[in-house]
Amino acid sequence: MAFTAWFKLRNFVYNNLHNDEYETPFSRCINWFLILLIIGNVVAVLLESVNQIYSTYQFYFDIFENISIVIFSVEYVLRFWSVVEKSPFDSGWKVRWQYVTSGAAIIDLLAILPAYVNFFVHIDLRFLRTLRLLRLLKLTRYFVSLQILLRVIEREKGSFQAVIFILMIMIVMAAAGIYVVESRAQLDVFSSIPASMWWAVVTLTTVGYGDVTPITPIGRFLGALITILGVGLAALPAGILANGLANELELRKQQLELKFRDLLENCEIDIIDDEEKIENIRKDVGLSTEQTQDIVLQLIRERKEKQLEREKNKYCFCPHCGHKLPE
Amino acid sequence: MAFTAWFKLRNFVYNNLHNDEYETPFSRCINWFLILLIIGNVVAVLLESVNQIYSTYQFYFDIFENISIVIFSVEYVLRFWSVVEKSPFDSGWKVRWQYVTSGAAIIDLLAILPAYVNFFVHIDLRFLRTLRLLRLLKLTRYFVSLQILLRVIEREKGSFQAVIFILMIMIVMAAAGIYVVESRAQLDVFSSIPASMWWAVVTLTTVGYGDVTPITPIGRFLGALITILGVGLAALPAGILANGLANELELRKQQLELKFRDLLENCEIDIIDDEEKIENIRKDVGLSTEQTQDIVLQLIRERKEKQLEREKNKYCFCPHCGHKLPE
Amino acid sequence: MAFTAWFKLRNFVYNNLHNDEYETPFSRCINWFLILLIIGNVVAVLLESVNQIYSTYQFYFDIFENISIVIFSVEYVLRFWSVVEKSPFDSGWKVRWQYVTSGAAIIDLLAILPAYVNFFVHIDLRFLRTLRLLRLLKLTRYFVSLQILLRVIEREKGSFQAVIFILMIMIVMAAAGIYVVESRAQLDVFSSIPASMWWAVVTLTTVGYGDVTPITPIGRFLGALITILGVGLAALPAGILANGLANELELRKQQLELKFRDLLENCEIDIIDDEEKIENIRKDVGLSTEQTQDIVLQLIRERKEKQLEREKNKYCFCPHCGHKLPE
Amino acid sequence: MAFTAWFKLRNFVYNNLHNDEYETPFSRCINWFLILLIIGNVVAVLLESVNQIYSTYQFYFDIFENISIVIFSVEYVLRFWSVVEKSPFDSGWKVRWQYVTSGAAIIDLLAILPAYVNFFVHIDLRFLRTLRLLRLLKLTRYFVSLQILLRVIEREKGSFQAVIFILMIMIVMAAAGIYVVESRAQLDVFSSIPASMWWAVVTLTTVGYGDVTPITPIGRFLGALITILGVGLAALPAGILANGLANELELRKQQLELKFRDLLENCEIDIIDDEEKIENIRKDVGLSTEQTQDIVLQLIRERKEKQLEREKNKYCFCPHCGHKLPE
Repeated sequence: MAFTAWFKLRNFVYNNLHNDEYETPFSRCINWFLILLIIGNVVAVLLESVNQIYSTYQFYFDIFENISIVIFSVEYVLRFWSVVEKSPFDSGWKVRWQYVTSGAAIIDLLAILPAYVNFFVHIDLRFLRTLRLLRLLKLTRYFVSLQILLRVIEREKGSFQAVIFILMIMIVMAAAGIYVVESRAQLDVFSSIPASMWWAVVTLTTVGYGDVTPITPIGRFLGALITILGVGLAALPAGILANGLANELELRKQQLELKFRDLLENCEIDIIDDEEKIENIRKDVGLSTEQTQDIVLQLIRERKEKQLEREKNKYCFCPHCGHKLPE
Repeated sequence: MAFTAWFKLRNFVYNNLHNDEYETPFSRCINWFLILLIIGNVVAVLLESVNQIYSTYQFYFDIFENISIVIFSVEYVLRFWSVVEKSPFDSGWKVRWQYVTSGAAIIDLLAILPAYVNFFVHIDLRFLRTLRLLRLLKLTRYFVSLQILLRVIEREKGSFQAVIFILMIMIVMAAAGIYVVESRAQLDVFSSIPASMWWAVVTLTTVGYGDVTPITPIGRFLGALITILGVGLAALPAGILANGLANELELRKQQLELKFRDLLENCEIDIIDDEEKIENIRKDVGLSTEQTQDIVLQLIRERKEKQLEREKNKYCFCPHCGHKLPE
Repeated sequence: MAFTAWFKLRNFVYNNLHNDEYETPFSRCINWFLILLIIGNVVAVLLESVNQIYSTYQFYFDIFENISIVIFSVEYVLRFWSVVEKSPFDSGWKVRWQYVTSGAAIIDLLAILPAYVNFFVHIDLRFLRTLRLLRLLKLTRYFVSLQILLRVIEREKGSFQAVIFILMIMIVMAAAGIYVVESRAQLDVFSSIPASMWWAVVTLTTVGYGDVTPITPIGRFLGALITILGVGLAALPAGILANGLANELELRKQQLELKFRDLLENCEIDIIDDEEKIENIRKDVGLSTEQTQDIVLQLIRERKEKQLEREKNKYCFCPHCGHKLPE
Repeated sequence: MAFTAWFKLRNFVYNNLHNDEYETPFSRCINWFLILLIIGNVVAVLLESVNQIYSTYQFYFDIFENISIVIFSVEYVLRFWSVVEKSPFDSGWKVRWQYVTSGAAIIDLLAILPAYVNFFVHIDLRFLRTLRLLRLLKLTRYFVSLQILLRVIEREKGSFQAVIFILMIMIVMAAAGIYVVESRAQLDVFSSIPASMWWAVVTLTTVGYGDVTPITPIGRFLGALITILGVGLAALPAGILANGLANELELRKQQLELKFRDLLENCEIDIIDDEEKIENIRKDVGLSTEQTQDIVLQLIRERKEKQLEREKNKYCFCPHCGHKLPE
């Protein structure tokens, strides 16, 4: 008895914390409560850093912090405990281990760990606050449309590494160049290549604070060349991303077409009538109705043509003399 | 009699204010007059904010403002009254309600409302002026090529939300980080995380005013990392837009091809001769002639091939009795 | 006699100044001489603006300027005179008028006009110099790869207008907003909306000089929002251009395929052997060999398939009994 | 005996230094050692430029530098000597000459040359250090993902030249314009057109240091126009790159499809089973598995259709005598 109740409970917890399909008013409340708590925590951290506010309301801040820690800890434990329901036939601990090593779980851990560490080793308050801001990352779980962007960025990893590499080379070269030509005029600012790097970064990223600028004609000429290179450099990520997003979309379309073709071959779908089926596949892949429609129509057209051909070859016998006709 | 005159009048007003197809010299005059009046209002607001100008010409400014209010109010009322003509068979008030809740109507209302509100509650003059600038939005009605851009942006909403979310996280993190490392050196500038956010925003958007910059080596190192991230971040919208515009175009092409195919199947169009029909469809969808031409040629080619095939199978006699076979 | 010589001369001039196909060492010399002269003029203008240089070498500068004027004038006259050769069968003056109203000719005129105008009405020296820089535009004639970019920009005109319109609205709104919230704190800087526009432009374009920045918390909050909008705004042109360039390329590919298909249908080209013909068409359209190759292979494949089909249908008679076989 | 040993040695050196396929723990060690040495050199140069560090550790810096020179020299000589193995049947010196004139070899030479030159002619220390940073370029050899980006940039050379040309014209025009309107107000800053160019570059690249800004209303108006143009200009490279990357990808896909088709026609590959073969081709071309999959499926589909057709035409007997007809 108790046992089944136990399983019931675990399953209930699982649905409310892990299962996205499962949507009840209660589960929605929990999600919203957690989201608001996260935002509240971030706001609290921001306000605490303002001394006069902190000194006046310290008491309430601490209470809120402690309550948050408790809630987040409980959340973590419950997630850890209930995740087993995900694949009931695997050994519970294997599933749990997979979960613990997943990105979301690590973020959850980072969100509560500093507070516990702080009990043993004292952490600089300023730094501790920053760490608490990691709780902001817990929101990523509730933010779906982030996935595509991240996948694209992850897929174009190689290109971005190349960009970083180019950037590094250009920063070092630019810093060294400006150091050679400017250090005599502004010994305090361009005192060494590492010092000049600050200017190089600020310039190549087209941020241009203006706290450090070349003043000699030759320095300005070199600076002009570097700024122009900077524009080109700043253009690389945009180009890569635009291209990456386009490819991502194309890949999804392929995926969709592929799935449809398989289903059609196995006669598991009627491309014209099974709207809800098509809708589901569409959502799985993550395309807009318009983009799907195109593929569907394409398939319908193909099917029509096939039918026509079959029509054409229907007459296997001469309707006059009844002899078999060569196809 | 009077009644029909009444309807005539309403229809006349409708054509001149709402109907884009209807183009007479008079309607064109009205449009241009309204456009100039809007621009005039904006210019007036800008000049009024210059004190010496305002103090000298206050009288004329006020007159102009009052006249404008009257005209815009009349415009609004007339639009509201005549919009019924749009769909004569629905109940008048339903149509009117739809109109009132449409974007354009809301903008029109916002353009005149503040002036009326000002009668009852006194609004700060500076703020009132800004509100009057909302009249500028009335121009969007006359600006067609804005539509595509807005639709793309609206379609890529999800991606942009993700970008905003990433931006928010990075701003908070960057502000917290710089606060930790710089607040000791520049307590007045990076006095708290909220205060440091100003620097974070200015840096991540690569604006870089330079009014607030890190000065400690560690702070500059962190700043450099953040600026580099800023370049990547600033690249996201460009990439998303480039991709969005490309998809928008592709979708329109699909649309066009689809329409053509339907018309062809129902033999309602002759793809070779009906230039004006093709032209109209093209304009509806909003593609350039060159982009359309491609699709048209494609369809022509297909048709030719079909004809050839029919040719091939036309002379199809039974090899025994020589009777014609049904295709 | 003299007459034919006259025509010969005009034709000779035409070939050297107008005809791009015509390439002799002499015509190349002329082009290079003109290019160098233009660059020389620009350099001269830049140096003249440095007072100490100008005062010392004024004499030489003036001589160089006068010589340049003469040469450019002669160039203009000769172009004007010889352009008739372009279409020998039209009336000379019609052709000349077309030429005079063409962009290149207008640039040429602008390059020499100010100097002549200066004889009659005295122009401020500083301004006159700037006008002389218009000679730089004469280089566009010799710069081919500029064409595609300009065509794309011209084709996306509509989108760019929309961007400018959005920019205008945002500048006015941003300026008004910052004026409302900041003018009390920095009355000298944000004294009026027009004055605040400088900050709005500098911010929305992410240039961020930092000579004018909000200092009040509310002002900085508004400023942060505007900078973020600025990033999105700065992304629009990049997205539009990326999309425009892609379409331009696609249109060229269509064009190429179209030309090939026509030639193939009229059997005027052998897609496999006529390399030089293909090469010429490719250059006309302006595609890279790789991009062309793709289309060529496509066509070859199609042709092969057609041949195979013909193969299949070759046997019109039964090789055993000699009866005609149904196709 | 000695001779074969000699060849063995040379081949061994070749494999470890030149041959990328050849991967033994030893060759990997060598590569990593060289990479670390390069990075170490760069770090050394950066630190040396900090005077107090240099003065204290000068001795160790010099030793490290000398050792590096020796190692890099030996590397260069060994590469030069062993490259012959690349194509054993050509004359050794021809191969060597090709190698010496290759980009990688030139970079290697530039990395060591300055140190030797320094023996004869004394080079300014600051400048010498910068030259030593060229060793950073030696890393490009080990950085594969850089290739695509560079090829794209190289392929879009024309467009980038056009951008540079536009940029040049705009810089000159902007500088001249601002010089005309601002030089009276800020004679020290905008003293001449060349001097004003610094502002023009900083503005058109949207860097905006703010060390030089227009202050007069007319100057600020002109400045605003130029900044807006700057945004458009900064957008050009991004657009070109996005387009270039897309084309590069498309070309690779063509290449892949082409290779597959050839192999299929010569029956050298089984599109369904030869996974490793497909994998190798994929890597050669440099596409992701997903992008390849699409093409493979396409080919499989085509093959299926062909088979079906063959099926259809297989039972092809003469309707008169029942003899099999040649297909």
